[in-house]
Amino acid sequence: MAAIIDEHSVGIVETKYVTLFEPPNELRLDSGERLGPITVAYETYGKLNKDRSNAILLCHALSGDAHAAGWHSPHDAKPGWWDVMVGPGKGFDTSKYFCICSNVIGGCMGTTGPSSINPRTGRPYGLSFPVVTIADMVRVQRELLRYLGIETLLSVSGGSMGGMQVLQWAVDYPDMVRSAIPIATAAQQSAQGIAFDVVGRRAIMSDPKWRGGNYYAFNDPPVDGLALARMVGHITYLSEASMRRKFGRRLQDRERYGYDFATEFQVESYLYYQGDKFTQRFDANSYLYITKAIDYFDLTNGKRSLAEAFRNVRAKFLVIAFSSDWLYPPAQSREIVAALKANNVDVSYCEIESDYGHDAFLLEVEEQRKLISNFLAAVAREFNVSEPE
Amino acid sequence: MAAIIDEHSVGIVETKYVTLFEPPNELRLDSGERLGPITVAYETYGKLNKDRSNAILLCHALSGDAHAAGWHSPHDAKPGWWDVMVGPGKGFDTSKYFCICSNVIGGCMGTTGPSSINPRTGRPYGLSFPVVTIADMVRVQRELLRYLGIETLLSVSGGSMGGMQVLQWAVDYPDMVRSAIPIATAAQQSAQGIAFDVVGRRAIMSDPKWRGGNYYAFNDPPVDGLALARMVGHITYLSEASMRRKFGRRLQDRERYGYDFATEFQVESYLYYQGDKFTQRFDANSYLYITKAIDYFDLTNGKRSLAEAFRNVRAKFLVIAFSSDWLYPPAQSREIVAALKANNVDVSYCEIESDYGHDAFLLEVEEQRKLISNFLAAVAREFNVSEPE
Repeated sequence: MAAIIDEHSVGIVETKYVTLFEPPNELRLDSGERLGPITVAYETYGKLNKDRSNAILLCHALSGDAHAAGWHSPHDAKPGWWDVMVGPGKGFDTSKYFCICSNVIGGCMGTTGPSSINPRTGRPYGLSFPVVTIADMVRVQRELLRYLGIETLLSVSGGSMGGMQVLQWAVDYPDMVRSAIPIATAAQQSAQGIAFDVVGRRAIMSDPKWRGGNYYAFNDPPVDGLALARMVGHITYLSEASMRRKFGRRLQDRERYGYDFATEFQVESYLYYQGDKFTQRFDANSYLYITKAIDYFDLTNGKRSLAEAFRNVRAKFLVIAFSSDWLYPPAQSREIVAALKANNVDVSYCEIESDYGHDAFLLEVEEQRKLISNFLAAVAREFNVSEPE
Repeated sequence: MAAIIDEHSVGIVETKYVTLFEPPNELRLDSGERLGPITVAYETYGKLNKDRSNAILLCHALSGDAHAAGWHSPHDAKPGWWDVMVGPGKGFDTSKYFCICSNVIGGCMGTTGPSSINPRTGRPYGLSFPVVTIADMVRVQRELLRYLGIETLLSVSGGSMGGMQVLQWAVDYPDMVRSAIPIATAAQQSAQGIAFDVVGRRAIMSDPKWRGGNYYAFNDPPVDGLALARMVGHITYLSEASMRRKFGRRLQDRERYGYDFATEFQVESYLYYQGDKFTQRFDANSYLYITKAIDYFDLTNGKRSLAEAFRNVRAKFLVIAFSSDWLYPPAQSREIVAALKANNVDVSYCEIESDYGHDAFLLEVEEQRKLISNFLAAVAREFNVSEPE
């Protein structure tokens, strides 16, 4: 398989890197620790208009990266993670808008994280990397925008953990954000969500190859633990109905039960494949840090209510949830909507009927395309946002 | 804490053992393999009446054992696993009925399983133990009843995997079973249920201390893997609502986030505790075998429909499900009810409103007590079952 580059594709793109927060201007994190320098991997699609008012920030989920759209090479098997939604004529129409996506801090896809070299020691940070939060991720993105000369976001959007960043943006930088599109997300990680993350982290940390996080020198990373963590994750991304339709109780390469412990159910084979594939591209320590950031996420923390947390929000909102998403169920999106409305924020809510579960945010393309492109067009009209030249 | 032995307790009880299927009369398993001898651990409560018609078989779930009710010693911290439901004046009223509970084959609580000594080698079976099914568990129970001189069951009941055994009993021994009370169960393990079990098994099998199942000689069992498996299980036993109420996002022994990877959420502490506690009483290989039996369970296998599977059923049914159980959701119980009705089986269905999730089958006591005792009284009346002398 090779790249499909048609008139709706952003084409061949390249990840760029910039180093920010050089000492003595380190980033001050929520934990109180200071971190710098921080290299940020990012990509951009489309052109900035002349008054720099058509920028849209795209925020990725747990396992995502800066490569949201297009292809890195004509030989790539797959395009960027949100390619269905980002390109000329798509939901985020790159013929009109300048889209930016960056890898989060703590990640392992080019932005500084636990697998990066600590310049003070010359060795990978490992667990000496400071714990980061969703707000810290947003601080780094804000600095990237400053570097790019962007002081206003026409919109900020993302699903799952990306949606958490969207909410954090609207709260922390109300004057910069004209609109926000949080998708399949929540204003706080639920106890059940924490529970699944706890299992994932324990799986990694009880793998002897994890070695207290200092596995980088051994060329033998904790793949069993990371694969297990990913398998648990995948169960939460699918609905019971989609699992039933996709796999049911069907056997893989067998006509009947083998009465042994070899892989035999299709769902088993799928989970093993997803788990093992993930270990080839993701760092186990980054999985610890990013899930921890998700578990810490709670906009009501230190507030009396979510409505109070949203008090300074000025962005217009389009909130999207999916009926069968049980990781971030629609009820959590409705809480966001209610709290925004309590602040007289202009908010549209759409609950899309889908049995894909949490994964729907990447799979239910058509309805989201229309919703997002219409919403963005209205915001662009309201703020007289010109098209790029 | 010590035993509470009141007028509703069966009091101090003792687990008994019997060895069945002595060669050359080995049990022929679903897999085609033959196994014997098989030692069975069992307990009984109450007295058999003179025409031996008041016997009730209680079937335990994944992590249960033969100790369903009462206390093994006055110093026990906890009674048997279904003590709330089994005793004089309780749901299964031991002043009227003779209740039997045995540990399943493949288990590790006294009945032959992978941790038992293989008499042919003098060493524990480990993974040379044959894979067993729910139907195999039922075959062993049927032989235990023969040994006890019981040819008719007034009822057979159990929750979760216990409920699967109940269904299998009604299908395989229709002439022996006068009534059946499957609780919080399903006629087939769902794809999602298989998926969670797959994760649990993989956690155990990727623990280096599992050693291909031959860990018994090392006094160093795969506790990390088994604890992880149990943690995943516990998440599926609770509902999102019960987790929110029980733990929410509250921290354990901390006022604020620690920004580290120590245990800090209450739900995290709970899961660790449950996982670690489980490893002190349960054998990792038994976890593999029993979850595999659950995953294989599918009454429709080889049939055109569940209704066809139930074609010879003669027992009256009381089917109980819980509104927030997402491991064996009410919809799966309603499928059982519909398939029984298609065969003109006399079936009552009760969906109990509860937010305890799957655990509700052990926690929602009052309503189940009434349902079960009324149902049993009606069956006993219909069959002129006398009280024991």
